[in-house]
Amino acid sequence: MAHRSMTRRDFVRNCAAGVSALALGPLMTRDSGAAEGKRPNIVLIVSDDHGRGDLGCYGNPVIQTPNLDRLAAEGVRFNNAFCTSASCSASRSVILSGLYNHYNGQYGHQHAYHHFISFDRVKSMPVLLSQGGYRTGRIGKYHVAPEEVYKFDVALRGNSRSPVQMADNCTDFIGAADERPFFLYFCTSDPHRGGGKAEDLPYQPDRFGNRREGYPGIKEVPCKPEDVVVPDFLPDIPECRAELAQYYQAVSRVDQGVGHLIGLLKRAGKYDNTVVIYISDNGIAFPGAKTTLYEPGMNLPCIVRTPWQKNKGIACDALVNYADLTPTILDFAGATPRDYQFHGRSFKPVLQRGRAEGWDTTYASHTFHEITMYYPMRVVRERRFKLIWNIAHGLEYPFASDLWESATWQGNLQRGNKRYGKRTIDAYLHRPKFELYDLENDPHEVVNLADDPKHRNKLEEMKAKLKAFQKRTKDPWILKWEYE
Amino acid sequence: MAHRSMTRRDFVRNCAAGVSALALGPLMTRDSGAAEGKRPNIVLIVSDDHGRGDLGCYGNPVIQTPNLDRLAAEGVRFNNAFCTSASCSASRSVILSGLYNHYNGQYGHQHAYHHFISFDRVKSMPVLLSQGGYRTGRIGKYHVAPEEVYKFDVALRGNSRSPVQMADNCTDFIGAADERPFFLYFCTSDPHRGGGKAEDLPYQPDRFGNRREGYPGIKEVPCKPEDVVVPDFLPDIPECRAELAQYYQAVSRVDQGVGHLIGLLKRAGKYDNTVVIYISDNGIAFPGAKTTLYEPGMNLPCIVRTPWQKNKGIACDALVNYADLTPTILDFAGATPRDYQFHGRSFKPVLQRGRAEGWDTTYASHTFHEITMYYPMRVVRERRFKLIWNIAHGLEYPFASDLWESATWQGNLQRGNKRYGKRTIDAYLHRPKFELYDLENDPHEVVNLADDPKHRNKLEEMKAKLKAFQKRTKDPWILKWEYE
Repeated sequence: MAHRSMTRRDFVRNCAAGVSALALGPLMTRDSGAAEGKRPNIVLIVSDDHGRGDLGCYGNPVIQTPNLDRLAAEGVRFNNAFCTSASCSASRSVILSGLYNHYNGQYGHQHAYHHFISFDRVKSMPVLLSQGGYRTGRIGKYHVAPEEVYKFDVALRGNSRSPVQMADNCTDFIGAADERPFFLYFCTSDPHRGGGKAEDLPYQPDRFGNRREGYPGIKEVPCKPEDVVVPDFLPDIPECRAELAQYYQAVSRVDQGVGHLIGLLKRAGKYDNTVVIYISDNGIAFPGAKTTLYEPGMNLPCIVRTPWQKNKGIACDALVNYADLTPTILDFAGATPRDYQFHGRSFKPVLQRGRAEGWDTTYASHTFHEITMYYPMRVVRERRFKLIWNIAHGLEYPFASDLWESATWQGNLQRGNKRYGKRTIDAYLHRPKFELYDLENDPHEVVNLADDPKHRNKLEEMKAKLKAFQKRTKDPWILKWEYE
Repeated sequence: MAHRSMTRRDFVRNCAAGVSALALGPLMTRDSGAAEGKRPNIVLIVSDDHGRGDLGCYGNPVIQTPNLDRLAAEGVRFNNAFCTSASCSASRSVILSGLYNHYNGQYGHQHAYHHFISFDRVKSMPVLLSQGGYRTGRIGKYHVAPEEVYKFDVALRGNSRSPVQMADNCTDFIGAADERPFFLYFCTSDPHRGGGKAEDLPYQPDRFGNRREGYPGIKEVPCKPEDVVVPDFLPDIPECRAELAQYYQAVSRVDQGVGHLIGLLKRAGKYDNTVVIYISDNGIAFPGAKTTLYEPGMNLPCIVRTPWQKNKGIACDALVNYADLTPTILDFAGATPRDYQFHGRSFKPVLQRGRAEGWDTTYASHTFHEITMYYPMRVVRERRFKLIWNIAHGLEYPFASDLWESATWQGNLQRGNKRYGKRTIDAYLHRPKFELYDLENDPHEVVNLADDPKHRNKLEEMKAKLKAFQKRTKDPWILKWEYE
């Protein structure tokens, strides 16, 4: 199904046609997500800055993520799942709204002086689930606003760096004697940078939340810097290895929280009627990933485990993105609203398939991280080619403050290296207006084909696609095609 | 008093010491603004995009502004009054908060998808006046958010393009049998661009709100294109003259609204105890003024008429800016809060003086107009020298959409002119990191001295001043001195 070239109106009409007759009223249609008839509970776990390469089930031989690997073995993992903005607030707003953030208004960070908020017109996933008969709860990182727009019935408390404790704090919510199904939004602050520099360690890596006294219920899994897998987009220098080791430890903490949460679902007798989804908001918190729309910034872990999965443990090649999550979860819940349009679409139909035709193109749209970091990028990503439009290409690429200060970036600079991973530092900081990559032959996005006459047609075709996407999704930055 | 080099803490301490003992409670001190003892009513009139050169009392021999000229003849006009951000929402937030908008959070436009809002921590002029015992009303253009922050007791209704009718709609508010003094915030949408292109006229100027059927109570004052005064920053081409003629007509409409409002104050017997202030939010809506921090964008009309003015009709040379308005008006009202800091200070002490020592430096800070128009600029303006730091100088200068489309800009382009006013088009669009101007010898800001070795010390001194200003006023963009 070539949905991406459909109009949004067509798409919504098709969606509405595809859901069944058990209407809840004028607003909702109800289509039991569970083939078995009962509407499932849904747990959406969002970790913070967890890269796709850093799970056992995605091929990392070192990092310890047994619980996530088990979840993937029971379900399906997506190899082409993308955030649409590689920044926490922006990405979470897309996850929770089904709308690109250039349209939902959460253009960048919500907190402190950044102060971006979404529009009141947004109908969010938790609000729609609540209207659809779900009880909704959230715990941990939130980072979107205003609260009325992203309203959950309850906000459970708990240190978002302490995932086992977070899970424990969900016990009553999960086990409540309430015949309504539940939706739980479970968001760790791990493995985000934080907690300061480890002055006591060689190369003084960021702690990534690790602390000497540990966290309740967590068996810390330290990793040696010499054992980590340094991905191609990072420099293989001791500072980077030291930071990756800290990061791995934080990831294992998330994994234990997930394991503990699943244990609680099982003990409450709910696991057999619960959908569990695991994603990360954006790429790893290192220059080259987070805040960029290069692959390490946007291609992320996405594991979906439903109790009715037949082809367990498969990898699905559909290109899905985070604007698809709200439609998908509402589809599970049978709570897809009528007369309201999302930018994404439900990927529930592809969960049993490894190869997913009709899911061959996706888009991304990033504008701000911090308010001071204006760097709008628009991306069209096909299976083989990818186009990035750097709208503010005249600017030096603006750093998130914590990434700029990182031991990895500063260490690489101080060593006088001209490259950072496979890319030159200069190319990283000074980007051309268009970047066109052949991901089959150049998976690290180093050879820009935008000026290559042989790829002129491809470039024009993808520019046209991008512009049509912007028009369809009412992107304010579309005017930048005309004039600055 | 060399206030500008004082710390804010010193400044606030001095302010607090300078107000009298008639305390209202823990929050307020009361110092009757009226020497006569009774607290005055205050009317703040804010027009939209009215340039300083376009009033009779500021030297324009053609434009018809008899009522504003009379107001100036009874009061004092400032020759060096500056907005701090040459954009409607941003500037109005500064007017109403006494804080630079990089700190009050209203970084750009409030409406539609721009969606900027101020912080809840801001204590605005109307709220403080209300707490200080004033009844407060507003009519016309508002353009700031959230409403709780900029709360008035009443929002009067009226077409903001119809200033006489607006004044009429204030009759009950002005005349109310209420012993409290009042504050009226009266904001026209004239002479902003609007109403489409006049297809029936040569060169198809924007209508600037003018319409064939006119407005109630207004005697339209048409102006011939050949009669307008084309200022040096604009191109003397027929398209520009045609647009200036429309603009002049809209200004005369504002003037009649002011006259009518003053008539109502007199008839209600209130004029003798009312302070009337007239300002414009930012410069004229032509490229080269509005949205820029060149002089035509920021140096604006400011007329203050108090009933107790002794030296009537003087021009005051103090460098004041719109962050000073809230402290000044609160000073008139005797409602200066304790334990709360503004960025500006009351200019009430200079109203009787032509020459105002100690008012020799001012600052400006502009970041966004539209959300898509990121172009942060920070300015320090002394009597002779002016420094502009174009933080995003790598970008082509972004246009407000209505200015880009204007007959004036497009007409000048189509004529193949290389200049726009005194500046080259290229210099207007591509700005260096620093612009340093000697306004005495180069009032049109054409000769950039930033790279001139003879001015290196001046440049460094002003950069240091700018940085200190940013630190003092907690400007998020201060980090751009360190890294992009």
